[in-house]
Amino acid sequence: MTTTKFVYSFSSGKAEGQGRQKSLLGGKGAGLAEMTNIGLPVPAGFTITTRACKEFYDRGRKWPPGLAKQVKQAVAKLEKACKKKLGDPNDPLLVSTRSGSAVSMPGMMETVLNLGLNDRSVEGLARCTGNPRSAWDSYRRFIQMYSTVVVGLSKDILEEKLGSMKARLGLLNDTDLTESHLRELCDDFKAFFRDEIGGDFPQDPWDQLVGAVSAVFESWMADKAVKYREVEKIYGLPGTGVNVQQMVFGNMGEDCGTGVCFTRDPSSGENVFYGDLLMNAQGEDVVAGIRTPIPLVELKDKNPEVYDQLCGVRVMLEMHYKDMQDLEFTVERGKLYMLQCRTGKRSPGATFKIAVDHATKPLLTKAEAKRLSGKGCLPKRYAAASTRPIITKDEAILRITGDDVDRLFYPIIDSSIDRESLMDRRLGTGINAVPGAACGQIVFDAPTAESWAADGLKVILVRRETSPEDVGGMHASQGVLTATGGKTSHAAVVARGWGKCCVVGCRALRVSEAGRSMSIKGRTFQEGDYITLDGSDGAIYEGTIDLVTPTLPEEYYTLMKWCDARRRLKVRTNADSPHDAATAQKMGAQGIGLCRTEHMFFDTEERLRAIQRMILADSEHERREALDTLLPFQRQDFIGIFEAMAGWPVTVRLVDPPLHEFVPHTEDKQRELADHLGVDFKIVHSRVERLHETNPMLGHRGCRLAITYPEILEMQTRAIIEAAVECRRRGVKVAPEIMIPLCIDAKELDILSDRVREVADGILKEAGIRLSYLVGTMIETPRAALTADSMAGVADFFSFGTNDLTQTVMALSRDDGGRFLPAYLDQNKAAIFQGHPFQTIDVPGVGKLVRMAVQSARKTKPKLKIGICGEHGGDPESVYFCHELGMDYVSCSPYRVPIARLAAAQAVVMKPAAKATKKAKPAKSKPAARKPDPSKPVAKKSKATKKKATAKKRPMAKMRR
Amino acid sequence: MTTTKFVYSFSSGKAEGQGRQKSLLGGKGAGLAEMTNIGLPVPAGFTITTRACKEFYDRGRKWPPGLAKQVKQAVAKLEKACKKKLGDPNDPLLVSTRSGSAVSMPGMMETVLNLGLNDRSVEGLARCTGNPRSAWDSYRRFIQMYSTVVVGLSKDILEEKLGSMKARLGLLNDTDLTESHLRELCDDFKAFFRDEIGGDFPQDPWDQLVGAVSAVFESWMADKAVKYREVEKIYGLPGTGVNVQQMVFGNMGEDCGTGVCFTRDPSSGENVFYGDLLMNAQGEDVVAGIRTPIPLVELKDKNPEVYDQLCGVRVMLEMHYKDMQDLEFTVERGKLYMLQCRTGKRSPGATFKIAVDHATKPLLTKAEAKRLSGKGCLPKRYAAASTRPIITKDEAILRITGDDVDRLFYPIIDSSIDRESLMDRRLGTGINAVPGAACGQIVFDAPTAESWAADGLKVILVRRETSPEDVGGMHASQGVLTATGGKTSHAAVVARGWGKCCVVGCRALRVSEAGRSMSIKGRTFQEGDYITLDGSDGAIYEGTIDLVTPTLPEEYYTLMKWCDARRRLKVRTNADSPHDAATAQKMGAQGIGLCRTEHMFFDTEERLRAIQRMILADSEHERREALDTLLPFQRQDFIGIFEAMAGWPVTVRLVDPPLHEFVPHTEDKQRELADHLGVDFKIVHSRVERLHETNPMLGHRGCRLAITYPEILEMQTRAIIEAAVECRRRGVKVAPEIMIPLCIDAKELDILSDRVREVADGILKEAGIRLSYLVGTMIETPRAALTADSMAGVADFFSFGTNDLTQTVMALSRDDGGRFLPAYLDQNKAAIFQGHPFQTIDVPGVGKLVRMAVQSARKTKPKLKIGICGEHGGDPESVYFCHELGMDYVSCSPYRVPIARLAAAQAVVMKPAAKATKKAKPAKSKPAARKPDPSKPVAKKSKATKKKATAKKRPMAKMRR
Repeated sequence: MTTTKFVYSFSSGKAEGQGRQKSLLGGKGAGLAEMTNIGLPVPAGFTITTRACKEFYDRGRKWPPGLAKQVKQAVAKLEKACKKKLGDPNDPLLVSTRSGSAVSMPGMMETVLNLGLNDRSVEGLARCTGNPRSAWDSYRRFIQMYSTVVVGLSKDILEEKLGSMKARLGLLNDTDLTESHLRELCDDFKAFFRDEIGGDFPQDPWDQLVGAVSAVFESWMADKAVKYREVEKIYGLPGTGVNVQQMVFGNMGEDCGTGVCFTRDPSSGENVFYGDLLMNAQGEDVVAGIRTPIPLVELKDKNPEVYDQLCGVRVMLEMHYKDMQDLEFTVERGKLYMLQCRTGKRSPGATFKIAVDHATKPLLTKAEAKRLSGKGCLPKRYAAASTRPIITKDEAILRITGDDVDRLFYPIIDSSIDRESLMDRRLGTGINAVPGAACGQIVFDAPTAESWAADGLKVILVRRETSPEDVGGMHASQGVLTATGGKTSHAAVVARGWGKCCVVGCRALRVSEAGRSMSIKGRTFQEGDYITLDGSDGAIYEGTIDLVTPTLPEEYYTLMKWCDARRRLKVRTNADSPHDAATAQKMGAQGIGLCRTEHMFFDTEERLRAIQRMILADSEHERREALDTLLPFQRQDFIGIFEAMAGWPVTVRLVDPPLHEFVPHTEDKQRELADHLGVDFKIVHSRVERLHETNPMLGHRGCRLAITYPEILEMQTRAIIEAAVECRRRGVKVAPEIMIPLCIDAKELDILSDRVREVADGILKEAGIRLSYLVGTMIETPRAALTADSMAGVADFFSFGTNDLTQTVMALSRDDGGRFLPAYLDQNKAAIFQGHPFQTIDVPGVGKLVRMAVQSARKTKPKLKIGICGEHGGDPESVYFCHELGMDYVSCSPYRVPIARLAAAQAVVMKPAAKATKKAKPAKSKPAARKPDPSKPVAKKSKATKKKATAKKRPMAKMRR
Repeated sequence: MTTTKFVYSFSSGKAEGQGRQKSLLGGKGAGLAEMTNIGLPVPAGFTITTRACKEFYDRGRKWPPGLAKQVKQAVAKLEKACKKKLGDPNDPLLVSTRSGSAVSMPGMMETVLNLGLNDRSVEGLARCTGNPRSAWDSYRRFIQMYSTVVVGLSKDILEEKLGSMKARLGLLNDTDLTESHLRELCDDFKAFFRDEIGGDFPQDPWDQLVGAVSAVFESWMADKAVKYREVEKIYGLPGTGVNVQQMVFGNMGEDCGTGVCFTRDPSSGENVFYGDLLMNAQGEDVVAGIRTPIPLVELKDKNPEVYDQLCGVRVMLEMHYKDMQDLEFTVERGKLYMLQCRTGKRSPGATFKIAVDHATKPLLTKAEAKRLSGKGCLPKRYAAASTRPIITKDEAILRITGDDVDRLFYPIIDSSIDRESLMDRRLGTGINAVPGAACGQIVFDAPTAESWAADGLKVILVRRETSPEDVGGMHASQGVLTATGGKTSHAAVVARGWGKCCVVGCRALRVSEAGRSMSIKGRTFQEGDYITLDGSDGAIYEGTIDLVTPTLPEEYYTLMKWCDARRRLKVRTNADSPHDAATAQKMGAQGIGLCRTEHMFFDTEERLRAIQRMILADSEHERREALDTLLPFQRQDFIGIFEAMAGWPVTVRLVDPPLHEFVPHTEDKQRELADHLGVDFKIVHSRVERLHETNPMLGHRGCRLAITYPEILEMQTRAIIEAAVECRRRGVKVAPEIMIPLCIDAKELDILSDRVREVADGILKEAGIRLSYLVGTMIETPRAALTADSMAGVADFFSFGTNDLTQTVMALSRDDGGRFLPAYLDQNKAAIFQGHPFQTIDVPGVGKLVRMAVQSARKTKPKLKIGICGEHGGDPESVYFCHELGMDYVSCSPYRVPIARLAAAQAVVMKPAAKATKKAKPAKSKPAARKPDPSKPVAKKSKATKKKATAKKRPMAKMRR
């Protein structure tokens, strides 16, 4: 049996691992390896793989065979590289032990710092550094961390011991404690350890290391981590990696410091080096909240050499990864160490700006490139390339995701609203943690937020502060408001990940979670009251305020133009009203792919009554009379829609739902209807009863209504064609496409389309107008797909209704799936489906059938117009699939149109020569997007990608351990 | 434009048409052509095609161009052959004009006899025949028939004129009228004609012929004919043919006669020449009901030459058509004329006897063959072959239909019932028109019969006499009883066609249809009272009597043995109880293909309560407790079933329906359940509400229950395996196959079958027993079929659940289809589907998917056991399809097992080398059965074939025009 390699060392410009091994090494480990390999200054260390973690669990929380030996070898290698030894009583090597899985889980797992200290080595460290206080403080921190993280002693008791000592001595800050205080505290901690555990605090660094590594492994399955993965829908990961690395200290004097930075401004996307810095500090000092970080640019004055070095690193990493990076570094006595590197999260606008800039502009001016190169901070080859764009337009297209587009349209407060009037309703201001505005009803706990939201209410979660337990409720809310915390607080970090409006640290706010009320500005608000938050300026308003979507960045239009030039698929929209049609036009829709006529019936009481009269009619004659009442309404609607789409094709679907959807089912409403119709209640009641269906999805609906009541089809055809004639008279171009829903047989379609043509041609002949129109069908049942060859013979076009097709192919009702579908999607349990079949097309099932249908239809009629009009039409993965099958268009809701345009272009970029007849494997053909790691785990795209959020002034956030 | 050939002449041993052109020439026309061609004595004539009839309607009831010319030419040819001319004043040619479509529609269309007579030719006829009375009677009949049939004058008025003349003259019978009476009547009829029509009765024979042919065409769409085709589900026919043929007269003296015969006894199947004869009579005299036919055999004495000639004809036709024939003939002055020949209808038992006899025994003894041949009545080649069997065993297998088998099992009165006790309940006796017994509630009109039957009631339709309007109600009834009529009455003929118990002509019965009561034997019965009919002896009993199925004829077993030796497909049964399992075993089932476990839950109150407690449980613990109560019941059931099937494989399907099917939905029942469970009504109510589903067919059922509540699957697996273990201990062989329903994904199946195996293996290990069992799935959703390749990887077997598969593939709910499916099946209107998709597998849709699934599954696992367990498993067409796909077995309800065995053998006979991978066209591969005409129209098999009924003593029936 060959031994699995569990440990990957890195030191001295050479790493065993690589940046693309993210799933094996974790994000942090991969970043450290990659930075080491490209020659950046990284403290030496090694990464224990995520696979080791998996085997740890597979073996009942025991180290797998070979791991201990490999770690020992890696420690030896590390000691050799550092020329220090762990536990050396003279000059000890100290290491950090940090977690790191393939997907970032900030603050969810454990870290142990200063490992290697013991009663003897602490003295050696004191001597070597000439700073005994610092050495003893490090030991104190180590004992404290180890006792809680590794052994599980109470954090609070240890903190209390620290606190009571400060109180006894009358000291305010930890930094006021002297060496002897710290020695005393260490003794106290160790005594507590002995009392609790029944053994001495471990002095052997190996024992310490084994404990710390195990503790990191254990933290993978800690409640909060499991819950986080559940909420964030992170699954398929083997475990966490463990990074053991030589400690570097940013707190050894004024030539030391620590910082977090982005290679570009993550909020605006501007090409500026952007970050925060704390001089003479360690990361955890940020958490203590006593020091204010300074802008990175100040390092230029404080230590120009290090700053230039960092500028070089910035350029090298952005060019190396071809994307904006998020970095962590420490300066120890004037020497720069890189501690982390990963693709940086950014605001929606910045996403577009950075992509377009990368494809069109250089990173550096020639002068700056020359300067950095001259100072030895930037290797020549980087310097030369840094004055040219670093990606192609195609790469820019691939970098954007559907969610990036989606988030551009997040709402803001309508700027046309009188600001003065808003001032009166302004309750106060908090810290503007995440931009965008939100409006909703106040709730005070996460379960209420989730349950109200599930009922369709819009809620604002108000908490004193949020905790990981709140994430479900936060996600369900429109926005989050907290009384405490800053931009690096839990609430801010989590909400930012979703691009969800968040205002934190509103000091004027008093929250009584128990009393389910909050008070501010002398006013008290109860659960259910409305407020509005403005995440851009942190303002809190009483009541509801109209929100609008913001102005789109110029780069959005640039990128969309590139997409339009690249894509082959047309993008239409699903719109049922002139208003939706106009909106969709603005979003770039090239016609309507699905206009559902039945929605129009609900528009007014008068229309609804007419359709009800039609449904409850006793005879064809009565039915026709009722339909005659509806005709002018429908005609008017179609005129409006045709005008809005001015010449673009408009696919109108004839009435589809079962008739019982239009009649009331409560006695009250039935009595009302009976009164209105002037018939006996019992008659109405019994007719409604007769309409009842056991399985309406498989019942009397769609074209089956037209088979039994051809007069409905005739009225609708009349309305469409008469509207078209009227538009033509007004000089408006029209291209109507009449779609017959739910056909399952060519003969059925033939009978109905003949009827449509007969009515239509009659109207056109009478009007003396030549107008071409199409008659086609929706392919939304397995039988339609299976008989696509014959259906194609009698259809002018096909539109795949993948919503119903998914329901019938999977025997899975959308309405009823809620009881079991979660179990099928739960990636931590059954994991039967990788994605939600109503969001992304089920390729092995539904997709297989769609492919067969497209291929056989095109055999019958090679030029048959084929589109898709289910929800899937706006889902990127599904759009790739449609492209690959050689469809002509996709159709989606107006706000998904730009996403579909993007995806259609990405499909071309990924597979430029895609043909309908070629077998597709779309599941494997994802765009590389901004993640260069091909080994990334299976992740629910819509959620996982949502985590790329605005990050204005958040660099220090993640330093919070 | 080439002219379509509309007219096919036949005369002098030479016909333009052929026997196989039934759809073009109609059944009668094809028979006449064939008999002419094989040299039998057929009066010369010509057939106008069904296509001409179709064009007649296509052109708005006008003769198509060319028809008149072709008819004229055919008349000329006929006149030449007969050496007589139509309308000749000296020796006129008289012709009959009869309808004849491809499917027999007895009495539904029109006939005109004696055409060619007019005021002058009647005198010529009188002179030529030397029988003026007969000539004038013929003219009287012609005028009467023409006036009513062609011109549409009132039948009643003309009959009344005839009646009143007889009354005036004090005469009883038509035959008592003299020549001068008849002359007077002719004048009277013609005067009436003139008064009504405003023109003289047509004297030109051409005009008469045009009128008669058009009248036959018109009768195709007469209300009663349309209704008959609707009821009989006859569709796809172009129209009726018209047969114009020289009249021959059976009523010209004692050397004349007319008869109807069968080449074998249609009731017993015995190899005897069987028929009825009327000497000196025409067919219509039978209708008048004044003469009693004599057995055919008496002709032997009356006219041995003609009898021998007829015996020769009998042998020739049976050998020519290789089946028992039904013949009509007339003897005119000692000369035999054949008028009709078609495959004869027969009793269920006779069907088997004739088929087996044809395959094993000669038609004639050598002596008889020699005798007939010697007399010149039988050509040599027929004589030689007539002493050997005329068909092969394979042909015998093909001749039997599923309906033939089905009808063998028609009920009779249980012979174990004390006959004396029955005598007390005997109300009277009628004519035993159709055998078999029936028991049900009395209804007095057809609509009530239909509506009660639709509600699931068993009814007996009691009428004074039935009419074509009653056929729907007759069909819906268990049996028919009439006060009037004989064995050739409407009721008898129609009921016989369906093999439905029928007692007619019960003179003691008084029926008050208005009063909805009947009286007999001094007793009065109301609508809804129970009676029992015995169609075998014509007895009527008060109340209900136990019915049993009759003893099967020996030839049934012989034929089934041939089938079993021939078939490749195994036949299993769907059975949920030991009783059903035992029944199915007797019917020849080779195991159980579907044992539905949920039916067992309803068996007792105790079981139902346990399942309800399980469903309404709050926790897994409570659920498991309730399941523990069910375990012993289920185990006991399985022991019973395993014992009944002694070693044959038994496929047990785990619980399938949605849980709400097990809980009460009315408040009363819910309160009862709440009391029983000791919980609040509101809790029960709200839990039941929560179980509600919009589309339960696509909801939380099947294996989805096992995914969410694995404890149900565990209990059921335990019950099955523990039962198997117990059987093994008792020395009973067992082969359990556990079937997981509704799987849509290989991973889902994998998870669940792993769980099944874990539980099963645990039990077997503990019991120390080695027992092999299979775990497989039902393929009943499109996705399962589409992913059959991967499913096959984790399944031991597949069973196609084509009921649900049809529902999902067609998006067609069985429960809800009633509102629109009739329109789809209506072959006279939309005709979208040829057959009912829940009866015969929908080959282009569902079948295509099944084929794909079988092929791809076998690619993964070539030896995968594959069966079908939907309703289709007992439908012959569907069985052929399963055979062709290379399935291993079909499974159907116990009483369909012999039908499936037959069909499985027919499949082999039709396509001996059928392979799974070969493309099948089952729609075209029907067995030739007893109908040699391959061009027969599309007809709903189950109904159309039902018309082959018992025909004891019914030969004259069809002479009723």
